[in-house]
Amino acid sequence: MTKLSILGAGSWGSALAMLAAENEHNVTLWTHKTSHAQNMQTSRQNPDYLKQLVFPDSIKITSDLGEAVRDADVIAFVLPTRAIRQVATELAGLNGFTSRNHLPIIMHASKGLEQGSHYRISEVLLDVLGDIFPDKELPIVALSGPSHAEEVVNHDITAITAASSNLQAAQTIQDIFTNHYFRVYTNKDIVGVELGGALKNIIALGAGILAGLSYGDNAKAALITRGLAEITRLGRRMGADPMTYLGLSGVGDLVVTATSPHSRNWQAGYQIGQGKSPQAVEADMNMVVEGMATTLACYEIAQELEVDMPITRAIYQVIAQGQAVDQVINDLMQRDKKGEIYFAQSQIDQGFIHDKEY
Amino acid sequence: MTKLSILGAGSWGSALAMLAAENEHNVTLWTHKTSHAQNMQTSRQNPDYLKQLVFPDSIKITSDLGEAVRDADVIAFVLPTRAIRQVATELAGLNGFTSRNHLPIIMHASKGLEQGSHYRISEVLLDVLGDIFPDKELPIVALSGPSHAEEVVNHDITAITAASSNLQAAQTIQDIFTNHYFRVYTNKDIVGVELGGALKNIIALGAGILAGLSYGDNAKAALITRGLAEITRLGRRMGADPMTYLGLSGVGDLVVTATSPHSRNWQAGYQIGQGKSPQAVEADMNMVVEGMATTLACYEIAQELEVDMPITRAIYQVIAQGQAVDQVINDLMQRDKKGEIYFAQSQIDQGFIHDKEY
Repeated sequence: MTKLSILGAGSWGSALAMLAAENEHNVTLWTHKTSHAQNMQTSRQNPDYLKQLVFPDSIKITSDLGEAVRDADVIAFVLPTRAIRQVATELAGLNGFTSRNHLPIIMHASKGLEQGSHYRISEVLLDVLGDIFPDKELPIVALSGPSHAEEVVNHDITAITAASSNLQAAQTIQDIFTNHYFRVYTNKDIVGVELGGALKNIIALGAGILAGLSYGDNAKAALITRGLAEITRLGRRMGADPMTYLGLSGVGDLVVTATSPHSRNWQAGYQIGQGKSPQAVEADMNMVVEGMATTLACYEIAQELEVDMPITRAIYQVIAQGQAVDQVINDLMQRDKKGEIYFAQSQIDQGFIHDKEY
Repeated sequence: MTKLSILGAGSWGSALAMLAAENEHNVTLWTHKTSHAQNMQTSRQNPDYLKQLVFPDSIKITSDLGEAVRDADVIAFVLPTRAIRQVATELAGLNGFTSRNHLPIIMHASKGLEQGSHYRISEVLLDVLGDIFPDKELPIVALSGPSHAEEVVNHDITAITAASSNLQAAQTIQDIFTNHYFRVYTNKDIVGVELGGALKNIIALGAGILAGLSYGDNAKAALITRGLAEITRLGRRMGADPMTYLGLSGVGDLVVTATSPHSRNWQAGYQIGQGKSPQAVEADMNMVVEGMATTLACYEIAQELEVDMPITRAIYQVIAQGQAVDQVINDLMQRDKKGEIYFAQSQIDQGFIHDKEY
């Protein structure tokens, strides 16, 4: 039995807590809001996020961070990207945290890039927590893949990736969550997995735009495939394994996000395709559309690293520069003819790509 | 201007003929049925296949094979898999065909494996036509990818792959078809492209089965992703480049086929998922469900080459051995825990896989 502390009681954090408790682990669920914690503790439900969920009795619920992580073998951040640094900083400042007698595994299940720094989530965590355990390398695992929380609560089938450069840590996470309806695969390529999870939202936005313009299946497939090709190109440049994008956090997550009208990013794109301004869409949805923020960050990264990302650039032109969608699509289709597997020349020069001269 | 001969006047052959004629090439469209050819020649339409299509005046339509291929620079087979060998044999037997003053490019756009031999389409073509041009290597190009013919006729956006070990031949095909709504990418990996096009139908069948059982997005994404992983594993064993499966004939075609209720294979799977027997489904649909035939062929190939294909095996157990679907799904989920990128041990032993020890 593992002692697991889950930080964040949104829909995904709650579903993972339920899953781990069903697998007979010792689970504590933390939320920063005292009233939210008290309501869940009393009602054993979390109706604002997951109507069907009833928490097993064994789950402890608290808003006291110190209590939540005491003796935890695994501390799992299941928070919005923008809250990661703050909660990690609180954790690092806890009295007695650094004098623990065993190093915890740090897990996260967030999909985004930090604004400004463009850090992946594990880089943020390492930035804050990496130095507080001297002489010990902090094991960080990203849990990512196509996973609606509602379906996990319904015991529907789900497959997901636990990624870490520390394979043993990834396997511990695999052991904790795997059961007959939830299957966890390990992957050593945390860079690729984290980038896949974040960048797929750009393509979901694009798929929504095409649907809003009444394009069909061929165009959707073209966008998803060529989008995946450019995500892979950037990932490769940033140290990811291209094969990761064939996996659950690449193809898998992209397929669900970019073909589902339930995705918030797809919805935002759809409205843009129908002629609404990106600013109006974001204002009307009354929440941050992650794909828009990620498009801006990704465009900057691609510029800096000189990686060709024509679809990201096109979406950037629409949402950040106010260009007309049909003109941008026309430009995309008029580019030079290309081979299908195309990496940046710098990659070829560096010898990463061997037999792909076209 | 290229002289292009298209063999087969179904929906895809007709759409490609229209596209090439719009691109100002000299196009002849052939069908084996004289009455069908005469009707199309007179009406300039092909209403049994594509209601919206009107053939440009420049397209010649004939049921005389010799006339169709005379002086053709490109001969394109756009026929059902089972008709390929027969028409190629007729072609080889044509008086004067082998004394042509220039070698044609042979193109095909079929997605399947020959029954019995398990040959890919280009292997069938090479088997029949390879020896009749002595001392010359016949250039064969496969055109494959996510492409509903109706959407091409509507000038909707489409992206597709032209694959050949002869890159120059692939580029010729790219030049012929590319325009502002149809974008062709080249790929040297014809093995990977042909296998992707054929094997995706197995996964479409599986996706239909899950939908018939009311599983959700997580399960669909898991099936598509792990299905792609095992197609890649088999492809790699048969000489394909794994990166091809990130492309249009892999992910792209799979996404369209396995998420669209319009796909015949998905439909067949859906009915099986709802409890109908595979035999009854095929009888009621009154046509061959390609995914079923491909499942049988692929299962045999995987056995022979000792490649692990758990999803194909599961579908085989359902459609060929009459096992219960829920039991098969349960078995799939109870297998040993795995790493995400998993290739057969024989591959690793042969040194194909370097840094994937898990």
